[in-house]
Amino acid sequence: MKKILIQLDTDPLPSTFDRVVAVDAGADEVFSYGGVTPENVTPLVHGAIFTRGPDELNHTALFIGGSNVAAGEALLAKVTETFFGPMRVSVMIDSNGSNTTAAAAVQAAARHVDLQGLRALVLGGTGPVGHRAAQILAAAGTQVRLASRSLGRAAETCVAIRSTVENATIEPATSTDDDLTQTLDGIELLIAAGAAGVQFLSADQWQSLPSLKVAIDLNAVPPVGLEGIAVTDKHADHAGKLCYGAIGIGGTKMKLHKTALAHLFDSNNLVLNTTAIAEIAAEIG
Amino acid sequence: MKKILIQLDTDPLPSTFDRVVAVDAGADEVFSYGGVTPENVTPLVHGAIFTRGPDELNHTALFIGGSNVAAGEALLAKVTETFFGPMRVSVMIDSNGSNTTAAAAVQAAARHVDLQGLRALVLGGTGPVGHRAAQILAAAGTQVRLASRSLGRAAETCVAIRSTVENATIEPATSTDDDLTQTLDGIELLIAAGAAGVQFLSADQWQSLPSLKVAIDLNAVPPVGLEGIAVTDKHADHAGKLCYGAIGIGGTKMKLHKTALAHLFDSNNLVLNTTAIAEIAAEIG
Amino acid sequence: MKKILIQLDTDPLPSTFDRVVAVDAGADEVFSYGGVTPENVTPLVHGAIFTRGPDELNHTALFIGGSNVAAGEALLAKVTETFFGPMRVSVMIDSNGSNTTAAAAVQAAARHVDLQGLRALVLGGTGPVGHRAAQILAAAGTQVRLASRSLGRAAETCVAIRSTVENATIEPATSTDDDLTQTLDGIELLIAAGAAGVQFLSADQWQSLPSLKVAIDLNAVPPVGLEGIAVTDKHADHAGKLCYGAIGIGGTKMKLHKTALAHLFDSNNLVLNTTAIAEIAAEIG
Repeated sequence: MKKILIQLDTDPLPSTFDRVVAVDAGADEVFSYGGVTPENVTPLVHGAIFTRGPDELNHTALFIGGSNVAAGEALLAKVTETFFGPMRVSVMIDSNGSNTTAAAAVQAAARHVDLQGLRALVLGGTGPVGHRAAQILAAAGTQVRLASRSLGRAAETCVAIRSTVENATIEPATSTDDDLTQTLDGIELLIAAGAAGVQFLSADQWQSLPSLKVAIDLNAVPPVGLEGIAVTDKHADHAGKLCYGAIGIGGTKMKLHKTALAHLFDSNNLVLNTTAIAEIAAEIG
Repeated sequence: MKKILIQLDTDPLPSTFDRVVAVDAGADEVFSYGGVTPENVTPLVHGAIFTRGPDELNHTALFIGGSNVAAGEALLAKVTETFFGPMRVSVMIDSNGSNTTAAAAVQAAARHVDLQGLRALVLGGTGPVGHRAAQILAAAGTQVRLASRSLGRAAETCVAIRSTVENATIEPATSTDDDLTQTLDGIELLIAAGAAGVQFLSADQWQSLPSLKVAIDLNAVPPVGLEGIAVTDKHADHAGKLCYGAIGIGGTKMKLHKTALAHLFDSNNLVLNTTAIAEIAAEIG
Repeated sequence: MKKILIQLDTDPLPSTFDRVVAVDAGADEVFSYGGVTPENVTPLVHGAIFTRGPDELNHTALFIGGSNVAAGEALLAKVTETFFGPMRVSVMIDSNGSNTTAAAAVQAAARHVDLQGLRALVLGGTGPVGHRAAQILAAAGTQVRLASRSLGRAAETCVAIRSTVENATIEPATSTDDDLTQTLDGIELLIAAGAAGVQFLSADQWQSLPSLKVAIDLNAVPPVGLEGIAVTDKHADHAGKLCYGAIGIGGTKMKLHKTALAHLFDSNNLVLNTTAIAEIAAEIG
């Protein structure tokens, strides 16, 4: 029986990126849909759960993608609500690559430092990738500072993460203060996940931090958020700090994306969201 | 040479149900199109008939689906009109599953009773499934009563069936009379194919009919049209009557759908509509 | 690793013709997109170039099609502009079949006459197929007369061809003069590529030309541009002239289309436009 992945994309034209990766991950057939919304998704889910026998449903799976992460989350909520009893298939969400990127970044750090008890700062922490990276770190026992231009929005994201992660140690900060001394104090891991073209720190600002061990910048196009990091950096050494750029974590992200897709066909009841994808990243190592 | 099925769906997003079944029926490639209309289908048909040699055209086929049965029928008319001479491919229509559901229901009955000369009542007989079930029964020599809320519309459907089936024995009836005694009198087979949520008969009304042998309700969601039938009933016994619910005939419908699709690739000149699909159901048995 | 062809079609529903041919040419997966424009194509190209390793990118390719040739050319310009450095995949353009039709027509002639120094007249020379046939002939060293109803537009197309083909010998002419004696004088090859239903020359006009050796008419539906040629003519003899109709060159066009598609996967840096497709036609012979 062929493994069918149904790609539900919230953009009008379904992502070729997600589609190529699905083929390379071993899906025999990829059904690609664009313009999918909570309003039109129900028959697409019914077709997935009503066509094969209950013990064959692990051969059908759903993938939610698209550039808009909030639209993807709304779609996931509707999809899982449409399942009932044993009538369900596994589903993965990776809108805008946010889950695999965040999990791959955290996993890159975990190869060099123990996340448990580590002091980490996530810049651009209210965006899709920053939010997810902070959440994964908090779940791993890291002491997280989540920074945004707006302290209020940073605080809101911290509340959201605390509601998801039991015993999270996370506090908000602003990334735009003239004096970032206190925010940066004692930081061992730095992850920059801001918008394109926004520089958070000069090279001197982060390279002069004595406590800093690992610095990761997730901007794929220069200028990046941490001046001096190259997009291709992969455990590169800058002033004694281990550094990664977006392309430098790309191999891990890609492997994680494919491994997670392959897991979808292990059973018919998986929901691969941020937490589950981070667990798969940890297994890959 | 790969077997290609071109799915022409009248809904904006082509059905995942029809697509999964096509894959499981052995199509090597399924090309899925949504929003297909008589106005835009011509180039899609040309691409099917002008790409492979005349003796290879049985490797390409068309499937017409979508939730709107009338739109599907209009599309089929345009598709077959576009063929000419040997330049044609086989085509199947099963909009809203109406042909396979109707044929599977009749076939379920045929396993227990001889359709020839049988007295049958089809409730909800002017809807897509009811109309088709009545047509298939009439073609098998059954004496059909076709009931609807409106006697006028029931009569119109009877006229349509008589124009399709030579020597049909079919008469209209109303399903909403206070006294259904005459309509129910002598009925041996009862098929309820009404809209969701409409109860035609109480359990007592149909279970007390001495002549009744088989009762089939095609509503997939309770409440069903014949009180007391469960959607999962499959030759279940209720008060001495053999009963089927929608899920109970689902296995037959699914097998029929796949078998019909597989037949499309036998030659390049089949038109699998209600009559042909019922013949395939009879062959499956 | 599977060979993936991404079909970028400028029409709302992507061509089934191009899709069937892609499958038959050996693409393992065809991703079909309709309604593709320069404005929405960038993420589709990114997904093609960012998903596989640099030395695997020859397993992914793009095909640009659709009924509007100008829209296809604009899309090709945007697609190639999106590539950078080694981040590119091979791409073929054959909007409305214009490149493969023109190249197949010229190749049909080349089997019978030496194109170098030949005197050819292309009627309907400003349309997509005529323009391309004239360009291919000019590149082969043919002395081309390019005729249109408007001498001005014929002259513009000649300028365009001279800017593409070094040392082109090409001059404009009108196809509607009362006296075509001078335009037809000495012509050895005649290609008619006009709009449907337009007759350029009566049978007597072209069959009485003593110099004429080969006559090709590319209209798929009668009436054709050169009276007396049948759409199925394939090196048919009419009054001592070798003649081809649209269907008569169809086999060559089809073989060329498939061969060009297969070439896309040879490397990741091919741009198969008119010139490259004509070269492949010449290799096929």
